[in-house]
Amino acid sequence: MTKVLVFSPHPDDDVIGCGGSIAKHVAKGNKVGVVYMTSGDIGSLAHSPAEIASIREREARQAAGCLGVSEVHFFKNHDGYLDCTWKNLVRVTSLLREFRPHIVYIPHEDDRHRDHRKTHELVVEACGWSGSPRAPVCGQNLWRVGTILCYEVGTPVRDCSYVEDITDYIDAKSRALAFHSSQLSNLDYNEAVRSLNRFRGITTGGGTYCECFQVVRATNLFSARDSFRRGD
Amino acid sequence: MTKVLVFSPHPDDDVIGCGGSIAKHVAKGNKVGVVYMTSGDIGSLAHSPAEIASIREREARQAAGCLGVSEVHFFKNHDGYLDCTWKNLVRVTSLLREFRPHIVYIPHEDDRHRDHRKTHELVVEACGWSGSPRAPVCGQNLWRVGTILCYEVGTPVRDCSYVEDITDYIDAKSRALAFHSSQLSNLDYNEAVRSLNRFRGITTGGGTYCECFQVVRATNLFSARDSFRRGD
Amino acid sequence: MTKVLVFSPHPDDDVIGCGGSIAKHVAKGNKVGVVYMTSGDIGSLAHSPAEIASIREREARQAAGCLGVSEVHFFKNHDGYLDCTWKNLVRVTSLLREFRPHIVYIPHEDDRHRDHRKTHELVVEACGWSGSPRAPVCGQNLWRVGTILCYEVGTPVRDCSYVEDITDYIDAKSRALAFHSSQLSNLDYNEAVRSLNRFRGITTGGGTYCECFQVVRATNLFSARDSFRRGD
Amino acid sequence: MTKVLVFSPHPDDDVIGCGGSIAKHVAKGNKVGVVYMTSGDIGSLAHSPAEIASIREREARQAAGCLGVSEVHFFKNHDGYLDCTWKNLVRVTSLLREFRPHIVYIPHEDDRHRDHRKTHELVVEACGWSGSPRAPVCGQNLWRVGTILCYEVGTPVRDCSYVEDITDYIDAKSRALAFHSSQLSNLDYNEAVRSLNRFRGITTGGGTYCECFQVVRATNLFSARDSFRRGD
Amino acid sequence: MTKVLVFSPHPDDDVIGCGGSIAKHVAKGNKVGVVYMTSGDIGSLAHSPAEIASIREREARQAAGCLGVSEVHFFKNHDGYLDCTWKNLVRVTSLLREFRPHIVYIPHEDDRHRDHRKTHELVVEACGWSGSPRAPVCGQNLWRVGTILCYEVGTPVRDCSYVEDITDYIDAKSRALAFHSSQLSNLDYNEAVRSLNRFRGITTGGGTYCECFQVVRATNLFSARDSFRRGD
Amino acid sequence: MTKVLVFSPHPDDDVIGCGGSIAKHVAKGNKVGVVYMTSGDIGSLAHSPAEIASIREREARQAAGCLGVSEVHFFKNHDGYLDCTWKNLVRVTSLLREFRPHIVYIPHEDDRHRDHRKTHELVVEACGWSGSPRAPVCGQNLWRVGTILCYEVGTPVRDCSYVEDITDYIDAKSRALAFHSSQLSNLDYNEAVRSLNRFRGITTGGGTYCECFQVVRATNLFSARDSFRRGD
Repeated sequence: MTKVLVFSPHPDDDVIGCGGSIAKHVAKGNKVGVVYMTSGDIGSLAHSPAEIASIREREARQAAGCLGVSEVHFFKNHDGYLDCTWKNLVRVTSLLREFRPHIVYIPHEDDRHRDHRKTHELVVEACGWSGSPRAPVCGQNLWRVGTILCYEVGTPVRDCSYVEDITDYIDAKSRALAFHSSQLSNLDYNEAVRSLNRFRGITTGGGTYCECFQVVRATNLFSARDSFRRGD
Repeated sequence: MTKVLVFSPHPDDDVIGCGGSIAKHVAKGNKVGVVYMTSGDIGSLAHSPAEIASIREREARQAAGCLGVSEVHFFKNHDGYLDCTWKNLVRVTSLLREFRPHIVYIPHEDDRHRDHRKTHELVVEACGWSGSPRAPVCGQNLWRVGTILCYEVGTPVRDCSYVEDITDYIDAKSRALAFHSSQLSNLDYNEAVRSLNRFRGITTGGGTYCECFQVVRATNLFSARDSFRRGD
Repeated sequence: MTKVLVFSPHPDDDVIGCGGSIAKHVAKGNKVGVVYMTSGDIGSLAHSPAEIASIREREARQAAGCLGVSEVHFFKNHDGYLDCTWKNLVRVTSLLREFRPHIVYIPHEDDRHRDHRKTHELVVEACGWSGSPRAPVCGQNLWRVGTILCYEVGTPVRDCSYVEDITDYIDAKSRALAFHSSQLSNLDYNEAVRSLNRFRGITTGGGTYCECFQVVRATNLFSARDSFRRGD
Repeated sequence: MTKVLVFSPHPDDDVIGCGGSIAKHVAKGNKVGVVYMTSGDIGSLAHSPAEIASIREREARQAAGCLGVSEVHFFKNHDGYLDCTWKNLVRVTSLLREFRPHIVYIPHEDDRHRDHRKTHELVVEACGWSGSPRAPVCGQNLWRVGTILCYEVGTPVRDCSYVEDITDYIDAKSRALAFHSSQLSNLDYNEAVRSLNRFRGITTGGGTYCECFQVVRATNLFSARDSFRRGD
Repeated sequence: MTKVLVFSPHPDDDVIGCGGSIAKHVAKGNKVGVVYMTSGDIGSLAHSPAEIASIREREARQAAGCLGVSEVHFFKNHDGYLDCTWKNLVRVTSLLREFRPHIVYIPHEDDRHRDHRKTHELVVEACGWSGSPRAPVCGQNLWRVGTILCYEVGTPVRDCSYVEDITDYIDAKSRALAFHSSQLSNLDYNEAVRSLNRFRGITTGGGTYCECFQVVRATNLFSARDSFRRGD
Repeated sequence: MTKVLVFSPHPDDDVIGCGGSIAKHVAKGNKVGVVYMTSGDIGSLAHSPAEIASIREREARQAAGCLGVSEVHFFKNHDGYLDCTWKNLVRVTSLLREFRPHIVYIPHEDDRHRDHRKTHELVVEACGWSGSPRAPVCGQNLWRVGTILCYEVGTPVRDCSYVEDITDYIDAKSRALAFHSSQLSNLDYNEAVRSLNRFRGITTGGGTYCECFQVVRATNLFSARDSFRRGD
């Protein structure tokens, strides 16, 4: 069974960046997990860090559940000050060797938000560890991630090298995002992301609504005979 | 009177990239001109180059007129193969010295379309010529362009260093774009650009609809006492 | 049937950069064509341009035939001074709409050789034309290329985002390259490329010999259920 | 009243990078504050860290006072090892929400000195925090910085997108810099900076002495009717 | 006597990246030292960090001895999580002021491995400290490093600005690398590096086997009359 | 005898960018030639192209003579629209094979002026041709350029990887530049370049006046035993 692991700097980045693709993976029978690097504990003026983290973890569970995600992990780093620490490298690598994802989603490296760039750097580094004969503290079963795709949240990706048609999943994506009500009260992320996905759909010609990605690594592009049937 | 000159690779790029800003400049009493580097003569499967160029020039005149543009220029380069030729450098520089714009709009340098990148390179180069004591063939009255802003069409700008709130002008922009019906039959540019401007508005917090730009050159940022009044 | 089109600045770049992948495509039953942008007419001190071009076209036909390539095209541009001209754009776009390749191979954009970079720029631009409703002179049947991969010749690719195991095809590749004897007398390209492919194989862990590519565009990454079976 | 906040990695970078602009802001009636990220405590071979920090803070107060700066802040990070820590992010964001600057000056991102790059990264990140509904620990009054400009110290800026004529303030700048005598005994910064400002003045045509900046963010470029009067 | 200092993220990177050049320096009578930033303590699945670090330090001493290196230093940072800390900056700067190397070798800044990039950043920063009148904790004898060259390990350098012919030293390099048997059991680095050096030799025309470098800083390029005799 | 060839986009760029180094090469007994890609025929408002070209060629001869340059070549391309044409590639390559320079000076690739960037691209390409067994039209005696250095004119180099102390030659440089009186009447280049060279001297610690360069290619860095004597 194809397995997918999404790394999200804060609760809601996963849905904004690749919520449609998550729903599509689930519809194909893929197993999807999500890792929240932080619980967004500075993401509110009205709540203490502990309160808002708790609220956002609940929202994240609901949104992910709504998309069909099988498991969620909260790494509970400090929001706003994520870093490529030993502890994070070990936790991410350990999870990669345990979950054994074929496909990994991360923010792209030019994202304006520092936590997003740090998530990118951290996971790419851990993917290197995971497949190499080192770091026994992370487990003995090496795992090489085949495909790494970078999603866009607030900063559009520069090199849009993969386009996913999410037209059939845009409503599921919107419903999932609606669970993140603590954040939507600040900004209308739902309309923002629908607008970006619509813009991408029209300009790439890939469908009514599309999610765009930068490919860091792809694999087995040509193994399947029939993969170019559909007009490609 | 503040004067604005927009360089557009093909008819409709001006409206898509900065149509709201054009309408806003006109509303402030600024004089706005538009230069079409090509007339988009390969932009149709159904028409000969001469036919479609003629159609698109008419559409461009109507759209520009609708926005309040004072004058339009057609440089009639080959669509798809614009280049930084002597003839183009002389024509652009000559127009800069004659029109004497304070503000110039061009596509940004990372645009996926070659004609867009070439328009950027050509106009930036010509702005250098215009203010230097050279090229008498372009006229004797040197003119230094104070502000150069780069707009986004199909490829979002990477460094969004200036945001213009065009909420009050989004409908005017849509009406103008509607004149480019030869192109809209291919792709729904109107919805695409409304989507991008809405995405930019929400994520920058700059207004309901915003146009985003990369600043190549700005001037007199601090000359006006009151320029930081409005919440800045 | 999956179709593949390789763009080669000079005769031999196709074999050096992706000869193993060509043989692998052929073995899977894919149809492969090669376009030589120039015939390498300055590539010898001992022959006139016409002579060496003729020699190298013959070598290219033999090498391509040896790999199982179905058709070759010689665009006969000036070696050393390839450019993104109207004529080249029209020829490449016309061929794309006629051949209708699912996969296109080109040099990568940071290649030290100017002709290689120009081939990259030209074909990426033409892929944009091919799928858009424009340029009727290039034919009426639009074609969107699904996958664009960039190969390495003398300059290793920086972002190695796709790895192809060519262990079973390295000898076929060497045999094909041996046909380019007019060039091999200058430099031992055969040993150079075997060395690079061996280095890539060891350091990526992808196989004994590997060809590495930068992904400009991928498609249908997840359409095939079984595409992640093989250890991925 | 327009308010300006300058972030300086060490005492003297503020004067070297934008001392003329500071004096000009003061002359216009703007309020200017300076934040010293470190007190330059490794900046001497002859003094202990505590001694030299104390000396340089005194020099910084005198130099800033000479330019008309209203307030100075010493954040007392370790010189040479500044980082984007939680503590620094909170302190910078808190000050932004309290001081409420319209304009912020920082080093540019390609500066050869690590502390300078880190100051850039830290303040840009904090400007993002300051205007967003998060981090209540930094205060409840959100503040969006309108303009962010990057100055040059030892490494010239690459994209010189804003030029300020400081001819009338070059002597004030030199007088201020002279207070940093602990540093001037090492290198003749005063002549270095006069040379760079003179070079910039001549090559940009902006005045006898000019300071050059890279624009990260600008605002309200066109709000003032008369802002293009002066030849622009 | 010319002195050379090599900074190696882990034991074996020194030999892989510039082992041939080290042997050549020794043959010319230069004094060569090597600094291992980490002892590679996560570099094995079969050993505890302490065990493998001890094994690799022994291998490093043997390999370095085999090449004629005069002294080795183990800085014993955590493998996988090297950083530009105060302690590292002080140790590297102190060693530079004590060893006084004319030439420094480091990994290049685009290396895929984070520890390699961090070694680059750290040493370049420390070279800046070393020659400036600051940081008395690192010693009072300032030392300016004349030449800084960046070597390639797993990621080829992009701008190959210096080529060293190591044909006469390739066997010594292989013999030295063979001492790193704890690592060679994982990957055949010896064949990988011979392949890369052979590829470089053929494509640059610099010799049968070559090591390629990116020049960060060079000095006295033209001081020696006869330096361009040998065909240059 | 060491031979040096300087490529200058317009008359005066050679003196501004590396006039001190030219004088220093001559003082060491090196042979220096200069190639002017254009004769600056649009460089005046008061003269026709033919007139100003003639004036500037005379000025160039005088300035070069004053520095001790042995030979000058005028390639008479159109000022402002230099390009990487077949004719230029052949002329530059032919001259390289005939003059056989050990060291070549060119503008750096990020220079703001298009002609400067094009000179860089053209000469780097031709250096590749010159050493390869091709292009018999350029001569049969292959020549590999050992060292390529990039100078700065109006845009400072970003990566200053080589510093030349020209303190003893700054007056000779100024005297040479004074011959370019047709250009100095526009801008005080002489003071601009003295200012930049002084800034470089102070901030690099390389001497009172220094010229800075980016190294594209260096050679034989370590061939001379004594090359690191002088404090290095």
